[in-house]
Amino acid sequence: MIPKGFSFSAVNAGIKTPAYQGLDLGLISCSNHAVLSGVFTRNLVKAAPVLIGIDLVKKGTARAIIANAGNANACTGQHGLDDAHMIMKATASLLGVMIDEVIPMSTGTIGVMMPVDRILPKIPQLVKGLSNDKDSFARSIMTTDTFPKIVSKRAGEACVLGFAKGAGMIAPNMATTLAIVLTDAIIDKQQLDIIIEKSIVQTFNAITIDGDMSTNDTLIALASGLVQADLEEISCAITEVIRELSLMIVRDGEGATKFVTIMVSGANTSDDARTLAMAVANSLLVKTALFGADPNWGRIVAAIGYAGVHIDPANISVHIQGLKVVENTMESSTFTEEELHQALAEKEITIQVGVGNGPGCFTAWTTDLTYRYVEINAQYRT
Amino acid sequence: MIPKGFSFSAVNAGIKTPAYQGLDLGLISCSNHAVLSGVFTRNLVKAAPVLIGIDLVKKGTARAIIANAGNANACTGQHGLDDAHMIMKATASLLGVMIDEVIPMSTGTIGVMMPVDRILPKIPQLVKGLSNDKDSFARSIMTTDTFPKIVSKRAGEACVLGFAKGAGMIAPNMATTLAIVLTDAIIDKQQLDIIIEKSIVQTFNAITIDGDMSTNDTLIALASGLVQADLEEISCAITEVIRELSLMIVRDGEGATKFVTIMVSGANTSDDARTLAMAVANSLLVKTALFGADPNWGRIVAAIGYAGVHIDPANISVHIQGLKVVENTMESSTFTEEELHQALAEKEITIQVGVGNGPGCFTAWTTDLTYRYVEINAQYRT
Repeated sequence: MIPKGFSFSAVNAGIKTPAYQGLDLGLISCSNHAVLSGVFTRNLVKAAPVLIGIDLVKKGTARAIIANAGNANACTGQHGLDDAHMIMKATASLLGVMIDEVIPMSTGTIGVMMPVDRILPKIPQLVKGLSNDKDSFARSIMTTDTFPKIVSKRAGEACVLGFAKGAGMIAPNMATTLAIVLTDAIIDKQQLDIIIEKSIVQTFNAITIDGDMSTNDTLIALASGLVQADLEEISCAITEVIRELSLMIVRDGEGATKFVTIMVSGANTSDDARTLAMAVANSLLVKTALFGADPNWGRIVAAIGYAGVHIDPANISVHIQGLKVVENTMESSTFTEEELHQALAEKEITIQVGVGNGPGCFTAWTTDLTYRYVEINAQYRT
Repeated sequence: MIPKGFSFSAVNAGIKTPAYQGLDLGLISCSNHAVLSGVFTRNLVKAAPVLIGIDLVKKGTARAIIANAGNANACTGQHGLDDAHMIMKATASLLGVMIDEVIPMSTGTIGVMMPVDRILPKIPQLVKGLSNDKDSFARSIMTTDTFPKIVSKRAGEACVLGFAKGAGMIAPNMATTLAIVLTDAIIDKQQLDIIIEKSIVQTFNAITIDGDMSTNDTLIALASGLVQADLEEISCAITEVIRELSLMIVRDGEGATKFVTIMVSGANTSDDARTLAMAVANSLLVKTALFGADPNWGRIVAAIGYAGVHIDPANISVHIQGLKVVENTMESSTFTEEELHQALAEKEITIQVGVGNGPGCFTAWTTDLTYRYVEINAQYRT
């Protein structure tokens, strides 16, 4: 399912390191001026395409996205900005659009200059290759991802198509990782901005794999405005696409063997609940215990205690896979260690933590921490 | 070197799980009323011995420390407090001291009731065995530690002897892990409190192995007051003992292959510098890159960027092993990737990060993140 007005292309431009060869330069083109919205990393160190993207999003419309994997174009100074502009200009000129209508996105290694001498000669082929081949585009933004991430939803006559990339350097704050949401619905910028801002709170901002916030995190939404759609329906479809993309990233977490849902309730505020859920989700001891199916619930309670949120330390409850494991911050007598060990052997784990009677609740998603994570990240670049 | 007035004992009381058998119950006795100081975990979830210790430290003197490994007596509610009191009472009675002159310390698994039926019958043997065997005591508080941690220093005629325990669940905040400092110097409580409070800032509060703050972290200092000593000299000796103990814990970090020093300078305040240093020290991507000797400096810069401290993102510099790697947030041209890779192959790594011209600086110590860390923590209890 492809939203009307959009076409796709992808080539290999020799940007990725040998270990991750394949498509690494992708293009999305829109036949008309698409309404543009976007959210970006809160990391103070922002990649060149992020700095440019933040400016472009203010303009409100765009015609194309040029994205690459293998090089983040981060920590590259003015040279990196110039490189991005060169790539945008070459693309714009061949597409017959303005340079500031082309949104750049990059992901990959930090601190290496973009191989523009390899990228620029590939852009004619990229533009010529525009088609409905969304799958190749999805592959062109992969780095350590093990599968491409595409989701689509109908919203009446309109539709929503989403892409994402990410498996490591995934941590809460704004749009984490690269994500693109396309729709053909008629929607104005203000509406699109509100939908995107709202939808990332419980999706991209609720996932964490390793707590490391990237310099490049970007979510871009484009609406071609070619199809009439109900605002409520399109809003739901966009939110659902973003939600599924964010969970796909967790499922593809580097080296992960488990998909872990952490639900915190009873906090004073939802912000407090989020802080608590993220403390559990980012605890190395919790994540390694999950990998080993070790029923060591004390590590969950310890993480709640050091999260920096005011709670009653005598009033913590924990359910794991529905088993009541902790009540009043003490082990419950209603389960056996063997039962819990069995429950933790599942691939999908749900941990529910109660911290009192407050209205604040939050659900976070994460992975376990495995040998393979260490292997991937000890070897990424060398 | 043993401070005058102190004697030691250790037995196996069957508290540790089979995997870590050996001595697991230790006693330190002082022939007179020792001046007492202590600092404790800031985790809201505090173990029973921590709750008791916080109260006892206010009294200002003590006669003994009873410590165990294998069970944290945390998340054990009133039952856990009663258990600790029973153990304190049995010890006090045999030593001929008051119950509130015996400081309890525990480390091990959270959420399991203390095996008091195995501990209490061993206390007579423990008291009878008091001697100058400080090494056995050091072993009795080990869990996943691979070596006992003892340090001693002279201060004129007086001396200082320190013990510590810890290899995982090590993270910044107050006294991290169990530590005991003994001296025979004449010193009053206020002086001792000040020395301890000051010395932990750049020692126990400057180390991190996995970012997980324990429910049991405790540092207890006892001064028997039998030897005249210069205050400045004894203060230096205590600080040095605490410093060496904290670095020993990093050297014994679970699964660690590297000892990593992270020096941040140029921040607005030393608190800011500490936050920045800890963000780098706790980054999984930095720690795995160090394990793999991967010259991926972008991960250090990214961690500085997301630490939540206001800095100029264009003004970051990084030296690794003395090599100038990053200047003005861009790769320096003065080193080769191969040089950096070679430098990172060393066992001791120093990373210097500059973030501007401010007066704030801080040094943190950490380890790399390895397969073995994952193995240890996926298997600890099961």
